[in-house]
Amino acid sequence: MKAAPILKKVRERKPVVHHLTNWVTIYDCANIVKVFGASPVMAHAPEEVGDMTKIASALVLNIGTLTIDFVEAMKIAAKSANNKGIPVVLDVCGAGATPLRDIKCYELLDQVRINIIKGNASEIAKIAGENVQTKGVDAGTVEKNLVGVAQYLAKTRKATVVITGKEDIIADQNKTFLVKNGTEMMTHVVGTGCMAASVIGTFAAVHQDLAEAAAAGLACYEIAAEQAAKKTKGPADFKERLFDVVFRLTGKTVDAKQRIIKK
Amino acid sequence: MKAAPILKKVRERKPVVHHLTNWVTIYDCANIVKVFGASPVMAHAPEEVGDMTKIASALVLNIGTLTIDFVEAMKIAAKSANNKGIPVVLDVCGAGATPLRDIKCYELLDQVRINIIKGNASEIAKIAGENVQTKGVDAGTVEKNLVGVAQYLAKTRKATVVITGKEDIIADQNKTFLVKNGTEMMTHVVGTGCMAASVIGTFAAVHQDLAEAAAAGLACYEIAAEQAAKKTKGPADFKERLFDVVFRLTGKTVDAKQRIIKK
Amino acid sequence: MKAAPILKKVRERKPVVHHLTNWVTIYDCANIVKVFGASPVMAHAPEEVGDMTKIASALVLNIGTLTIDFVEAMKIAAKSANNKGIPVVLDVCGAGATPLRDIKCYELLDQVRINIIKGNASEIAKIAGENVQTKGVDAGTVEKNLVGVAQYLAKTRKATVVITGKEDIIADQNKTFLVKNGTEMMTHVVGTGCMAASVIGTFAAVHQDLAEAAAAGLACYEIAAEQAAKKTKGPADFKERLFDVVFRLTGKTVDAKQRIIKK
Repeated sequence: MKAAPILKKVRERKPVVHHLTNWVTIYDCANIVKVFGASPVMAHAPEEVGDMTKIASALVLNIGTLTIDFVEAMKIAAKSANNKGIPVVLDVCGAGATPLRDIKCYELLDQVRINIIKGNASEIAKIAGENVQTKGVDAGTVEKNLVGVAQYLAKTRKATVVITGKEDIIADQNKTFLVKNGTEMMTHVVGTGCMAASVIGTFAAVHQDLAEAAAAGLACYEIAAEQAAKKTKGPADFKERLFDVVFRLTGKTVDAKQRIIKK
Repeated sequence: MKAAPILKKVRERKPVVHHLTNWVTIYDCANIVKVFGASPVMAHAPEEVGDMTKIASALVLNIGTLTIDFVEAMKIAAKSANNKGIPVVLDVCGAGATPLRDIKCYELLDQVRINIIKGNASEIAKIAGENVQTKGVDAGTVEKNLVGVAQYLAKTRKATVVITGKEDIIADQNKTFLVKNGTEMMTHVVGTGCMAASVIGTFAAVHQDLAEAAAAGLACYEIAAEQAAKKTKGPADFKERLFDVVFRLTGKTVDAKQRIIKK
Repeated sequence: MKAAPILKKVRERKPVVHHLTNWVTIYDCANIVKVFGASPVMAHAPEEVGDMTKIASALVLNIGTLTIDFVEAMKIAAKSANNKGIPVVLDVCGAGATPLRDIKCYELLDQVRINIIKGNASEIAKIAGENVQTKGVDAGTVEKNLVGVAQYLAKTRKATVVITGKEDIIADQNKTFLVKNGTEMMTHVVGTGCMAASVIGTFAAVHQDLAEAAAAGLACYEIAAEQAAKKTKGPADFKERLFDVVFRLTGKTVDAKQRIIKK
């Protein structure tokens, strides 16, 4: 599969991507959607999230700074998205760190239709039922067959599953992609994981095959990160460049650099 | 009118500008006030917003990530500002996107004294009563006489009205300014509109004629944006430069570059 | 005392630093912890703050955008930290600006064990009982013996007290340090004070003598700021560089540049 045509669709259609996300990286999540050429919106009042989702083409949920009320608003937004038939991405940010996070992830997965479940290795392993310790929101060491975990969760939850990491794994019920783009510098900046979920939502907004959309989004984002990391002065310079490289990213560069492998 | 003398007053008086704003761009709103030489403060607890407003010289309200409770806190802060006689700016961010936003804008406009109503074309048209669809917080195409909309809303609400866009329109009950400064790059960065409201509040804090203050603030901000956009590497580099150009902006540059037209 | 060995411990142990902080500078607080090599986490739901604190090595509280519920969550987190025996830093951000802030600071100081009280001159003077007016969160002029204020508060509250400013003062019940590093440019960027509290928490997470930890953290942070301020284009460029200099900061540079004086 090729990522560039999906990037092109993002820029042509400029989809509205509605977020209920955490207060730490909310700006960067909005801005990465914007520099990809799409239109971010962030709203969380229970009285309006359903309406806001109606004007969106994808919904991104991130439990990074969850509260019980905030998750209730997520459910309203997700039900509105389900009714409209637009994809819902859930970033299970920090799953495994506290019981509340796990309970709320399961509630969301049980009570609304989540189309894409996204997390790092330890978070997804936790959601898949593995007994893994999470050290905050950074990935713990998971000595497991991660591809198998992703495929298992995709089947049991009938969803597309994304495990981000040095190699990203994307599995739906029928196929699995690996995305081998990216750079170690991404691990030194707060928010690169949250932004990845926003990018996946943005690409899912314009492309029906959600595993392809996720793989394409991650590839484009991480190709930009590779460029941004060249001769960078450090994590903050890198993040600034990342936005600017995404803004100028061409289909030609994506074609030349994408390392998406179908397993 | 000249913008530079009002910029000078901002730097001399360093006004405290109190915000109840959205969680997406709150940092940039604070920082733009700071680099202009003024003193931002953000507080939203209903138990203290009235007290905080008492030590401020302007109040900026932005409904970007509103909740019902948050708007109630805005009303308390605005009543305190009204009692003190300091200007209140309302950024009707996302008006038209959901019924809740419109209802809450009308509530604020009806229940407290809003001195400056600020939004993009579709947001202001919505508040003025036009039947306009908003696509999230980005401006829709409004095939209307925008100057007329601004003047109409200024008269009916007895307020200064600011419509930001390629050309900004500022109208009070007696006069209208156009500000023709700015750069297309501003449309590629999340938060330039929210920052504009903070800048307007900062200038309104030191200058009694609010239309002049708004025009001067927008001109200074957008002149800095023009400089920041020169040879920029992209939206993120641009935003960083914008803060730095504002910090160093001289009255001489403002005099040379301002494009404020009185209609 | 030498700061470099404590910096080394931060990088080796990569402590989890849990924050309940304000919504303005929350990203920068997380990111400064990250570039120092540690692991930030931000969570505020009362149902999980106790659990999250259990996986942390320090807790940082900042009342910048407090609400009554948020302070209640702080108390739960602090009690969990107290039980675990990890240090709790309280940034009394904006103390003196409103009665609510003072009341809530006293509540926290009375109801839980705060190990490090941090603020600027007017904030700490207020908490120590001096009758000082605060102009928002910027430091007012305090014509007082600040060292005496710090020592007095350290004794009465049996805590380490940090007053940030041109010269930082760190006092516990037995000793006092001055940190003479830093740059005026820090005063032109929103969030440098909040980040200082996060840095103190990060160093306190790995070093038992909390006054030494605070002095070392501030020295490292401000040495980086000195480097970042060289030939800087302005406050935004400076802040970006600050993160990048911290990321690459060597023990050798710290040894050469630290200006920590024991009084």
